[in-house]
Amino acid sequence: MNTPLHVPASPAVDTLFLGYPEAARLVARRGVVACLRGMVEAIESAFLRWPEFDKSARTAAHSPDGVIELMPVSDARHYAFKYVNGHPVNTRQGLPTVMAFGALADVRTGAPVFLSELTLTTALRTAATSVLAARRLARPDSRTMALVGNGAQSEFQALAFAALAGIRELRLYDVDAEATRKLVGNLRPWTERLGVVVKACASTRAAVEGADIVTTVTADKAYAKILTAGMVESGMHINAVGGDCPGKTELDAAILSAARVFVEYEPQTRIEGEIQQMPADFPVTELWRVLNGSAPGRQSPREVTVFDSVGFALEDYAALRYMRDLAHEAGMAVALPLVPQLADPKDLYGLLAAAEANERQARPATGPAAVPAERGDATALPAGMAFAAR
Amino acid sequence: MNTPLHVPASPAVDTLFLGYPEAARLVARRGVVACLRGMVEAIESAFLRWPEFDKSARTAAHSPDGVIELMPVSDARHYAFKYVNGHPVNTRQGLPTVMAFGALADVRTGAPVFLSELTLTTALRTAATSVLAARRLARPDSRTMALVGNGAQSEFQALAFAALAGIRELRLYDVDAEATRKLVGNLRPWTERLGVVVKACASTRAAVEGADIVTTVTADKAYAKILTAGMVESGMHINAVGGDCPGKTELDAAILSAARVFVEYEPQTRIEGEIQQMPADFPVTELWRVLNGSAPGRQSPREVTVFDSVGFALEDYAALRYMRDLAHEAGMAVALPLVPQLADPKDLYGLLAAAEANERQARPATGPAAVPAERGDATALPAGMAFAAR
Repeated sequence: MNTPLHVPASPAVDTLFLGYPEAARLVARRGVVACLRGMVEAIESAFLRWPEFDKSARTAAHSPDGVIELMPVSDARHYAFKYVNGHPVNTRQGLPTVMAFGALADVRTGAPVFLSELTLTTALRTAATSVLAARRLARPDSRTMALVGNGAQSEFQALAFAALAGIRELRLYDVDAEATRKLVGNLRPWTERLGVVVKACASTRAAVEGADIVTTVTADKAYAKILTAGMVESGMHINAVGGDCPGKTELDAAILSAARVFVEYEPQTRIEGEIQQMPADFPVTELWRVLNGSAPGRQSPREVTVFDSVGFALEDYAALRYMRDLAHEAGMAVALPLVPQLADPKDLYGLLAAAEANERQARPATGPAAVPAERGDATALPAGMAFAAR
Repeated sequence: MNTPLHVPASPAVDTLFLGYPEAARLVARRGVVACLRGMVEAIESAFLRWPEFDKSARTAAHSPDGVIELMPVSDARHYAFKYVNGHPVNTRQGLPTVMAFGALADVRTGAPVFLSELTLTTALRTAATSVLAARRLARPDSRTMALVGNGAQSEFQALAFAALAGIRELRLYDVDAEATRKLVGNLRPWTERLGVVVKACASTRAAVEGADIVTTVTADKAYAKILTAGMVESGMHINAVGGDCPGKTELDAAILSAARVFVEYEPQTRIEGEIQQMPADFPVTELWRVLNGSAPGRQSPREVTVFDSVGFALEDYAALRYMRDLAHEAGMAVALPLVPQLADPKDLYGLLAAAEANERQARPATGPAAVPAERGDATALPAGMAFAAR
C-alpha cells in the first residue's frame, strides 16, 4: 500500500456532545412537527436497509422498580447505542420515568463521534415510528385517535398523529387526571392550527369507543389489561407503545389472537412485547417487510391491526444521526474530552507524565502537600519526581 | 404511605462528567501506584461479592478491522457499563487501539450519575486485575517478568507488577522496536526507585526464557501464537491479556492443555478468551472462587498457571466507582446536562415550550428568519406562535 500524502500527525477524536438544553433548542428552532417528519423519513430509510444492520435484542437489567437497558446496532459505517431506563415509580419523586442518552461511533476506528441526550429524542423517535407504522397499518380514512396514558410521551404521539397521519379528533384518558390536564394544555396552541379536536374522556372505554386508532402509552410495570377484547372494534389499529418489558403489557391476549400483529424486531419483541403473552409460534410480521413491500400491511377495512412496539435500536440509530446533523448545521454541539488525544497512540502513559508536569508547573513553590506523593505507598516517588521529562 | 417531609420540588439528576484530562490529573495527583493499589482492592472487593451481581457476557459488534463492545453489570445499588473498541489498525493512523468510556447509574431510579472517560481507567484496571490474579496464581518468589507487547497497556502492567507484585526484572519484547523504546523511556524514572532492572530483548523467546511470569499484551486481531509450548517452563504463570476476542488469541493451545487455566467470567471467556481454542468442557476456574477460598489457586511450585484475561464488566464497575470517589474528593468532575430537569416529570414536552420561549426572547425583533417556522411544513405554526405560554 502506498502511504497517503496527508496523514495528520495526531488526528483528533472529537466527540461532539449534545445536551438536553441544546437538543430542545434545536427542535424548537426547526419545529417539532418538522423534526417528527424528518425522523419518520430517517427511520423509514434505516428500516429499508434492514439486512445491512448487525442487530440484537437489547440487554436488560431488571430491578424491583424498573429496568435499565443498552441498545446497540450497527451497519458498516456507524455503531449506535442507547442507554435507557424505565422506572414508573420515578414520577412520585419528581424524576422522569424514562431517561436516555447514547452515542454514535465510527465503525472503522471505534471512535465515539457523537454523544447525546436521548430522553427528548426518544420521545420524538417513538412517535415517529408509531406514525410510520400507522401509515401502513391503520385505515387510510382514520380521523379519530384514542390516547390512553397521558404522560411524558403523550404530546409527541398526539402531535405526530395530528400533523402527519390525518388525525382530527384526540380522545384522552389517564388514571391521573392531572396528566390529562397537562396534555390538554400543551396541545391547546395546536388545536386550531391543526384543526384538531381534543376531548378528555372519563375512562379508557369512553376514549376508545368509535376510535379509528388506539394508542396506549401507559407506564405501569405490570401485566395490565388497559384494553380488553370487548373494547376493540372492527377495523381499529392499535398502536401499543407502553408494553415493552417482560412483565409489562397493556393488551388482553384475546385482542392479539384476533388481530394481525406487527413488530419491529421479532427476537426482541418475543421477550418484551405484548406477544410475550402468546405462544412462541404466534405469527407476527416485521415492520420492515411491510415498508419494503415484501409483506402486506392492512389487507381489509375490517381487520384489526396491532403495532406491538417496544422500541428498537435502529430507531435510535436514525434519531442519533438526525440530531447530529441538526447540531452540525446549527453549530450547536460542543467537543467533549472523552477520548485521549495522544501524540503517539501507543503512549497512553504519556498522558500521566504530561498531567504530572502540569501539576508541578501549576503549583511550583507550595511544598509537598500541593502534589501529594503516593499516599500510603512505601515504594512511591517523592512528589514532583515520579515522572521525569522524556 | 406517609408523604415524606422534605421532597424537593424538582430533584436534579446531576450527571458528573470526568474527561480524560481530569482523569489523568487525578491519577497524577494521587500517584499511579496508589491508584493501581486502590483498584486492586476495589476489584477484589467486587469479586468477593460475585453472587450479588447481575452478570452477562458483553455484546460485541465485529467489523473487518475491529470490534465495539458494551459491557454492563449491576448490583442492587449501581449499574455500570463500558463502551470499548479494539482496532489494532488504528495506531497506523495515529489513533489509539482501545478507546473507552462508560457510566455509573443508580439502580433505584435509572439516573446516570457519573459519566467518565475509561481509556486511561481501563489500562489501570486491567493491570490491577492482572496483579490481583498473579498474587494467587504466580509463585510467591516470582521476581522476573517477561512483557511481550509494549503498546499502550504495557507501562501499566510493568508498574503494577513491579510496585505491587515483587517483580524486580522486566524483560521487554515487541515486534515494533519503537514501542519498546517508548516503554523503556517511560519506565526509566521508576527503575531506581522500585529497584527494577529493565531489559529490552531481541525476541519473545529471549524475553520469556527463565521468567517467572509472562505477560502477553499484544494487539493483533488474529489467531496468533505469541507463546509456543516450547517456551513455557515449569512453574511459570502466564498473564494472557491480549487475546480477548473471537479470532484473537496469543497462546498455543498446547500451553492451555498442560496448564491450570483461570478466567474472570466463564461464559464470556469461552467466547473471547484463549480457551476459545479448546473444547467447551475444557476445565477452568473462575478467579472469584480463588479469591474467596472456594477453589485453590496455585497448588505447587512446578505447575503452569494461565490467567486467561479478557476484561470483565465487574472490573469497570469497581474502576468507575474508584474514579468517581477520587473525582468527588478532588471536586474535579463537572455536571453534564445529560438528563432533563423537569418541573413536572410527566411534562417532557414542556422542555420544548421553554426552549421556544427562550428563542423568542433571545431574538425578539429580527423577523421571522430568526426563529424559522416549520420548514417545508404546510401545517406549521408561524414562528413565535408555535408554543403559547401556559
